[in-house]
Amino acid sequence: MEPGGCEAGPAVKAVAAVLPAGGSGERLGGATPKQFCTVQGRPLVSYTVRAMERVSWISDIIVVVSPENIETMKSIIEKYGHKKVTVAEGGITRHRSIFNGLKLFSENEFSNHLLQKPEVVIIHDAVRPFVEEDILLKVVMAAKEHGAAGAIRPLVSTVIASAADGCLDHSLERAKYRASEMPQAFLFDIIYQAYQQCTDYDLDYGTECLHLALKYCKTNAKLVEGTADLWKVTYKRDLYAAESIIKDSLSQQICIITDVKEAVVQVGFLLHECLRSQIKVEAVSVSLSKGNSHLQNIFSGQCYNFVCINDKKYATEEIQQLVNMLEESNIPLLHPVVLISAHLNSLENTSFSIDLEELTRMKKFAREVKRKNILVYGLLVQCKEKRSPWRGQEQGNTAPRLANNRGIGT
Amino acid sequence: MEPGGCEAGPAVKAVAAVLPAGGSGERLGGATPKQFCTVQGRPLVSYTVRAMERVSWISDIIVVVSPENIETMKSIIEKYGHKKVTVAEGGITRHRSIFNGLKLFSENEFSNHLLQKPEVVIIHDAVRPFVEEDILLKVVMAAKEHGAAGAIRPLVSTVIASAADGCLDHSLERAKYRASEMPQAFLFDIIYQAYQQCTDYDLDYGTECLHLALKYCKTNAKLVEGTADLWKVTYKRDLYAAESIIKDSLSQQICIITDVKEAVVQVGFLLHECLRSQIKVEAVSVSLSKGNSHLQNIFSGQCYNFVCINDKKYATEEIQQLVNMLEESNIPLLHPVVLISAHLNSLENTSFSIDLEELTRMKKFAREVKRKNILVYGLLVQCKEKRSPWRGQEQGNTAPRLANNRGIGT
Repeated sequence: MEPGGCEAGPAVKAVAAVLPAGGSGERLGGATPKQFCTVQGRPLVSYTVRAMERVSWISDIIVVVSPENIETMKSIIEKYGHKKVTVAEGGITRHRSIFNGLKLFSENEFSNHLLQKPEVVIIHDAVRPFVEEDILLKVVMAAKEHGAAGAIRPLVSTVIASAADGCLDHSLERAKYRASEMPQAFLFDIIYQAYQQCTDYDLDYGTECLHLALKYCKTNAKLVEGTADLWKVTYKRDLYAAESIIKDSLSQQICIITDVKEAVVQVGFLLHECLRSQIKVEAVSVSLSKGNSHLQNIFSGQCYNFVCINDKKYATEEIQQLVNMLEESNIPLLHPVVLISAHLNSLENTSFSIDLEELTRMKKFAREVKRKNILVYGLLVQCKEKRSPWRGQEQGNTAPRLANNRGIGT
Repeated sequence: MEPGGCEAGPAVKAVAAVLPAGGSGERLGGATPKQFCTVQGRPLVSYTVRAMERVSWISDIIVVVSPENIETMKSIIEKYGHKKVTVAEGGITRHRSIFNGLKLFSENEFSNHLLQKPEVVIIHDAVRPFVEEDILLKVVMAAKEHGAAGAIRPLVSTVIASAADGCLDHSLERAKYRASEMPQAFLFDIIYQAYQQCTDYDLDYGTECLHLALKYCKTNAKLVEGTADLWKVTYKRDLYAAESIIKDSLSQQICIITDVKEAVVQVGFLLHECLRSQIKVEAVSVSLSKGNSHLQNIFSGQCYNFVCINDKKYATEEIQQLVNMLEESNIPLLHPVVLISAHLNSLENTSFSIDLEELTRMKKFAREVKRKNILVYGLLVQCKEKRSPWRGQEQGNTAPRLANNRGIGT
């Protein structure tokens, strides 16, 4: 979908993004630059790349890193299966790095890259991982119209100017000013022309791209109110916050998959009812062996937790099919995928036994897919009486009437 | 200790603090104002009060809350054993709330309060819990000299001014400006006089106390560079960050207490050696029954984790004594206190048994003190061979040679 397809306004021919990621992380107080710090086991820059990558109308993403981090960045791209990404070598300041990134689009004749020059280029910090498609679209459309655009936020603190003696000179009226945030977007020709005219002083001491577009191209950027998500990971406390936000997002969605047998569908329905007050739940009844476009939609909606319910004793095959579908869907597996395979022991049968060979097979499978960031758990559910499990709950009991719950897996 | 006792400069006669806590928490996006949101089970404002309270030279703390939260605040003071605190009723804006707080010092003749008018008053946000004594001292001393002083921080984002059409008018050169943060401090007479002269417009739309001192008393506040800890809990992500910082601070210190028997002291020494590369460890050898001033120092140094090692089978009595000392030390128990009682089974004796009656007594005791925010755990350690436990490690093994570790407790 092109930006013009979503909102009124002219369609944009091509949109690319440049992510400066050359910072040294001084303010974080650690040795690792903040963009490479891991959050839930994954480098921060990978979350930001993913946030841009999932936007279908962004064609290329340039990540600009300092020379010593080029190999690190390449291995991150490899490890997390990022597409559309090109690594560029950064300069010694922020503006020099962004300029280097932009050059990749303009100097194709001299290089091996075959990157199409975009009509609009987004500039976004590698340390702002929670950017949403909505604000990206807004700044791109505003840049198409005004030549430049940037996200802004209200000031959290009053801004003051100090006199030479270290005393207060004056304070700014907070309501008249805004914090300039990212993303920003520019007609490529405008920002590139601005950088070409920059003085060394600009390149060494400046930080604000909107300022360059104004100074050198007389382009007054359109300012777009952004949401609180746009904040920049600056201090160690911000890494803590990012970690908690990502953890939170992990547990917000679950998809219950059942086959089409009535008894199993009913269990799925009851589980759905139990869970829906706590987390976002989808439920589908499909034959996994046939594939399903509805499931594809669920994957791309970033639901990565599944409970597959069936009445076979083991269902390694079904789980294998789900894993295959996940892999074929070609989505980068950002967060761990959790698959719980719940096996209802034959509803008519009260005997209970574990097939050790099957169990070993399942555990081996779980170990294998764990490497792909897919966590498989198995659950054997035995009903105490000859009736549907969870029926106890329908009658007002809070605990399901299950005689045994046995966990297997990783 | 008075401020003047720490640094060169005149001693300050009396220092009080006003904490505006009347905010509605709009930016947080929740129903509970952020100062009353719980972090690790305790309201944020309680952490901030504690941070001020532990500074011996601050005599009074006024917490200004909106009328509907007065009872909540009083119950927080009661529950967490805060001292020195008076609750004041806030106004409808930040400036009106601070003014109300200041009035308590000046209108004693009309009220029941017997609060001494301070020479210097600190104003600090209830949602900045990580303020340290060092910066408080700096702003107080600077206020004594200059009449007003406030903490500042570098700007994280560029500040821009927008034109009437929503486009960029100009951006400020980041290096010339600073974010005005808290704490601030004032000679009481200056800030009170400024508030008395304020217009309604100031009281309704202003937020910056330094600005009032400049406008009405021609006092140019001294600006003091603060540390990154001074940040204000504004958004939900800041609550996550505060939670992680507090969790981190919980595990940074541990005190190992042994009695004076040689074998036990040796185990304590080895445990100290094992742990010291990971966390800050103190070790003391004392008879708990006699009390100990060294332990008192440890409490006030905010070390709230203890491992008591002894060679009795159970040591409920010793643990009870430690709990008594903690309570008598009269320190507010901010974080949960963790007490691990490690009992070395007679080093000469390889038999092992559990006295169920003693175990029940210990568990009951653990349940009781848990209400006071003290978590007691017990550990029975049985040595496999007739030699010191941990000696295995001295020989290069990583696992201590213990046959049994049994946990009891909460």
